Amino acid sequence: MIERQGTSHDSGTKTGDSDPQASASPLLTDLYQFNMLQAYIDRGMTSTAVFEFFIRKLPEHRNFLMAAGLEQALDFLEALRFSAEDLEWLKSTGRFHKNLIDYLSTFRFSGHVHSVPEGTVIFENEPILRVTAPLPEAQLVETRLINVLHYQTLIASKAARLVLAAPGRQLVDFGLRRAHGADAGLMAARASYIAGFAGTATMLAEMEFGIPTFGTMAHSYIEAHDSELEAFKEFALARPDNLTLLIDTYDCDAAAHKIVALAPRLRERGVEIKAVRIDSGDLAALSRSVRRILDDGDLGDVTILVSGGLDEDQVTRLVEGGAPIDGFGLGTALTVSSDAPALDCAYKLQEYAGRARRKRSVGKATWPGPKQVRRREMGGKIVGDTIGVDGEHQEGKALLIEVMAGGRRMTKLPSLTQIRRHAARQLEHLPQALRNLEHRADYPVEISDLLSRLAAKVDAELERHN
Amino acid sequence: MIERQGTSHDSGTKTGDSDPQASASPLLTDLYQFNMLQAYIDRGMTSTAVFEFFIRKLPEHRNFLMAAGLEQALDFLEALRFSAEDLEWLKSTGRFHKNLIDYLSTFRFSGHVHSVPEGTVIFENEPILRVTAPLPEAQLVETRLINVLHYQTLIASKAARLVLAAPGRQLVDFGLRRAHGADAGLMAARASYIAGFAGTATMLAEMEFGIPTFGTMAHSYIEAHDSELEAFKEFALARPDNLTLLIDTYDCDAAAHKIVALAPRLRERGVEIKAVRIDSGDLAALSRSVRRILDDGDLGDVTILVSGGLDEDQVTRLVEGGAPIDGFGLGTALTVSSDAPALDCAYKLQEYAGRARRKRSVGKATWPGPKQVRRREMGGKIVGDTIGVDGEHQEGKALLIEVMAGGRRMTKLPSLTQIRRHAARQLEHLPQALRNLEHRADYPVEISDLLSRLAAKVDAELERHN
Repeated sequence: MIERQGTSHDSGTKTGDSDPQASASPLLTDLYQFNMLQAYIDRGMTSTAVFEFFIRKLPEHRNFLMAAGLEQALDFLEALRFSAEDLEWLKSTGRFHKNLIDYLSTFRFSGHVHSVPEGTVIFENEPILRVTAPLPEAQLVETRLINVLHYQTLIASKAARLVLAAPGRQLVDFGLRRAHGADAGLMAARASYIAGFAGTATMLAEMEFGIPTFGTMAHSYIEAHDSELEAFKEFALARPDNLTLLIDTYDCDAAAHKIVALAPRLRERGVEIKAVRIDSGDLAALSRSVRRILDDGDLGDVTILVSGGLDEDQVTRLVEGGAPIDGFGLGTALTVSSDAPALDCAYKLQEYAGRARRKRSVGKATWPGPKQVRRREMGGKIVGDTIGVDGEHQEGKALLIEVMAGGRRMTKLPSLTQIRRHAARQLEHLPQALRNLEHRADYPVEISDLLSRLAAKVDAELERHN
Repeated sequence: MIERQGTSHDSGTKTGDSDPQASASPLLTDLYQFNMLQAYIDRGMTSTAVFEFFIRKLPEHRNFLMAAGLEQALDFLEALRFSAEDLEWLKSTGRFHKNLIDYLSTFRFSGHVHSVPEGTVIFENEPILRVTAPLPEAQLVETRLINVLHYQTLIASKAARLVLAAPGRQLVDFGLRRAHGADAGLMAARASYIAGFAGTATMLAEMEFGIPTFGTMAHSYIEAHDSELEAFKEFALARPDNLTLLIDTYDCDAAAHKIVALAPRLRERGVEIKAVRIDSGDLAALSRSVRRILDDGDLGDVTILVSGGLDEDQVTRLVEGGAPIDGFGLGTALTVSSDAPALDCAYKLQEYAGRARRKRSVGKATWPGPKQVRRREMGGKIVGDTIGVDGEHQEGKALLIEVMAGGRRMTKLPSLTQIRRHAARQLEHLPQALRNLEHRADYPVEISDLLSRLAAKVDAELERHN
């Protein structure tokens, strides 16, 4: 169970053990981590290692990504323990020696973490998070650390595209049901809220993170009643606040006429219809005809929300086509990041025992050593980054900051509201070419001379030894 | 916490609270479920409802899907409870009346469930799972039930394609790190094992489900040593069993030569190299040159495993091209189902208070009433299905069977080994055209006359009332 330490949540949140994130077992990792740990412990290879997490390549059609998931990554590092039951089971597999079991029995992550703040725009090869810790510790945390950071970064990045596609519209995450499991459903709500969504349908996200929730009704609700009009009326009386009615179960225009007829009767009882939702069909045409019917029926204040398999391309077409839509419910396309359901990311060794290291596998070579990213701005827009050796003097603002020391997070990490504000500013600072959803625009990310020379030096050492 | 009841696991499993699946909160659902429940409870709409879960449309290039996730779905239904803390929080939102909080405080799922067995091949519009329960119960479970069944069905279906692409080869799930969160990582191991994978790298899947685990080492292990040869030797001594060495950190051919030199020295110490793994580069060419070097070095028994961003198309090309590859590690493409990261699935009301119901939304109309699927075989191959009214006489074997009554699962559900055997037989019974990964082949799924007539009757009733 995780105590949320040093984080200030927004109102209405709670801490506790119902968070699917927190319940992850220390055994939710790859077998090879324990294989390597056994070898490291046998050999006493416990000197300090530096690993960095980064995205190797942006997905097609993407001009930028948005980092997210740091808070859950730090939760994981702080809470990582092996229970008596875990140790017993590891022993029972007969695969590991007593020295490893003993090591794990007192395991605490004692390392340092540097990271870009959540909500920061990032590009290819830029380290997003750096772990500095004794080799076995830095190695053991690899799998779940990637698992946490990858997914939230994936979703914040997708959500940012939707936010750019629908300026001024209300966007809501409806994607829990087809998210990949419990953890993904919850974290998609968090990551999309960071990127600028108004909220989510997922109740647990309100309870855990204070994210505003939105909800209407299912088609089954309409179908369970003998008539649509009766269903509308009963729902309005049971749920009068923020009343939103789903109008596409049978025929949208007919339903809109029923709403026009129903509205004065509800008003007599003090109930106002706030919105209607259309979940299928030709949303551009339906939103127009429904808008007309509502306006003609003196319901100009009733807003129109749409949903149903939408992605940022469809949202763009609806918005640019001038459809009278006030809000979008985004489901599957958001929570599985439909155009790019995974990022080509990695967590790689950069230094061990004071010496820079480098992977040279074909197509997967990495820049060695602990690194820093410097970002330059001009006229309120970002204009170029430099990836350099950590500590090297470079122009621009350093993106990686220390967030954990000695296994404890720094006292004051930003609240979700602050992260969200940071993310909004990041999107404002994007040059117009990068905000474009269709065309690939390249943002200049340079490698510093010092880093290039370090890579050449590491290569020369490798040649000598291999 | 979930007690695994009535399921017989394979050896080496444990039950307990470290399962991310089990820890899902009852609030991991959409707000609209509670809105609808409030209205249902206010109105006393608690008659029996029937909902069915099905896939509306197969993804492009897919000829079939494979159902999975039933055991976790039943776990969820049996364990669904609201804690005092959940109820307190719901109250604190100020959104719900006392009658709903009271209802939730004693909530138990008391319904019946019919389902196709896990590992069964399924097609469009065929009900996979049917819930029969008082309306508020059947409604409340919607979101998480879809969340559970959708993901495992998605992954078992993807894994089945990989199994068909690599006959006789060993397939292992390496995809935890880029799976969408903790729950997805664990359940991908289970679903791919059902479909015919040999195992997974995910330790928790062995602990929870008894699934065999496989693991080698990371590139960081090689890089942390001064030389690759030293890294190989130290690893072999620390982890002599099932010894697999990763050879692509710097240069595969050079590494293979080192292994040939190392093997006799290890053999003197009783250690045999079992396999090498190549994780990057031109796998067809590298596997051939490495095979030659190993064979020339008298290491014909050392097998070659490959990994690194592979999907079923690449696996097919490698296998059909005759590359000397003995096993594949499948990562991201498997656990995010890269070509189709979501299925167009739904959980829809079919009947309420004894009357069949139907959704008629554009492009999303459903067949009404509780249904059954009958499947016909000929010469050991499946030849056609009929979706009919439940209880109707039809030729063929009924796919949906009762698995839960009165909220308790039936005593004897199949073990994971039995599910896996069932899935293997299902793939054997697929006609060749459906086993093809490239071309879309249509399998005949008919709607019975009785079901068509029922749909017409429901439509006529709707016309009268709306």
